[in-house]
Amino acid sequence: MTLPEPLERLVEELQRLPTVGPKTALRLAFHLLSAPDAQVQALAQSLLDVKSKLRTCSRCGHLSDKELCAVCRDPRRDTSVLCVVATARDLMAVERTREFRGLYHVLGGLISPLDGIGPSELRIQALLDRLEVEKPGELVLATNPTVAGEATALYLFRLLSARNLRITRLALGLPVGSDLEYADEVTLGRAFAGRHEISAKL
Amino acid sequence: MTLPEPLERLVEELQRLPTVGPKTALRLAFHLLSAPDAQVQALAQSLLDVKSKLRTCSRCGHLSDKELCAVCRDPRRDTSVLCVVATARDLMAVERTREFRGLYHVLGGLISPLDGIGPSELRIQALLDRLEVEKPGELVLATNPTVAGEATALYLFRLLSARNLRITRLALGLPVGSDLEYADEVTLGRAFAGRHEISAKL
Repeated sequence: MTLPEPLERLVEELQRLPTVGPKTALRLAFHLLSAPDAQVQALAQSLLDVKSKLRTCSRCGHLSDKELCAVCRDPRRDTSVLCVVATARDLMAVERTREFRGLYHVLGGLISPLDGIGPSELRIQALLDRLEVEKPGELVLATNPTVAGEATALYLFRLLSARNLRITRLALGLPVGSDLEYADEVTLGRAFAGRHEISAKL
Repeated sequence: MTLPEPLERLVEELQRLPTVGPKTALRLAFHLLSAPDAQVQALAQSLLDVKSKLRTCSRCGHLSDKELCAVCRDPRRDTSVLCVVATARDLMAVERTREFRGLYHVLGGLISPLDGIGPSELRIQALLDRLEVEKPGELVLATNPTVAGEATALYLFRLLSARNLRITRLALGLPVGSDLEYADEVTLGRAFAGRHEISAKL
């Protein structure tokens, strides 16, 4: 190929991104080449900023550019409920539902012995410390309904079950808009087990 | 959303790229967040380099980081054939075929009165100057087989037809691997008009 070196290098760097193959990388590179200087500089600067300015919230472990994250800084949040999630992405997924107004605790992963991640690798001591200080009434264990997620939830449940604390887990069942016919048996089984009276609320 | 500001800005900047929507932008941003610092810095640097270091080859108009582009610097290229293309991307498409070993001339666009692009907006005077100096034997007008591409080729042909110069145009016909049944009539008509004796070469 007769790409000049700076363009060649940009194409290479873009190809390291997920979902970006050689053709997309070339397309993006040409787009950037003809984009206004200011836009490309803004992109480059925001790439550098995201690595240099972001850190984790000292209270909950969420991503933040300040000492405390936006959720922890918000005085309107309900401090009586604490939602435990594995990652910042999971936190954001819960936030998008607008169903939860409490606070979060980000574990930084899930217990997974095969990957060498034990309880001590996660922010579990920080969770225990928070429970002492903040004394929430409910702890929602919002880890994934996968082997690692269930194992982590079970570990935390055992660790905390002696305390005067309501410990809950997210409901399992059919995804909204899904088709009963195509649901896997485990999900459908859980949906059956978790069935409830029809109320005026739903 | 509870994205910290540097991450929010990166997502915004990534969304300006073609084919990148909000979900992809978020995915890319998180990928970059967990990527090694060096990789993200390399991407940022190559973005800046591509805008600051790239210019056009003073001879043919192709993208280059030096005075002359890689094609023009290559002493093995056949100087007796000059291929006229609209853009650097078209040049690269021809290069990928490995069929052409001559030199190029990048017009920088196609004649398109509706977009306000007349012959004077293109690198046509530079082409005339090159023809005087380099005196190639053949000029391949490799512009797209579209209205604008045909108009530009016709304009150049009229401008240059008085010269002692072989002026050619790319063959039109069926794409390799295509199905006759699904070819559009114009393409199939051109393929018929351009039919040739079967030779041992093909």
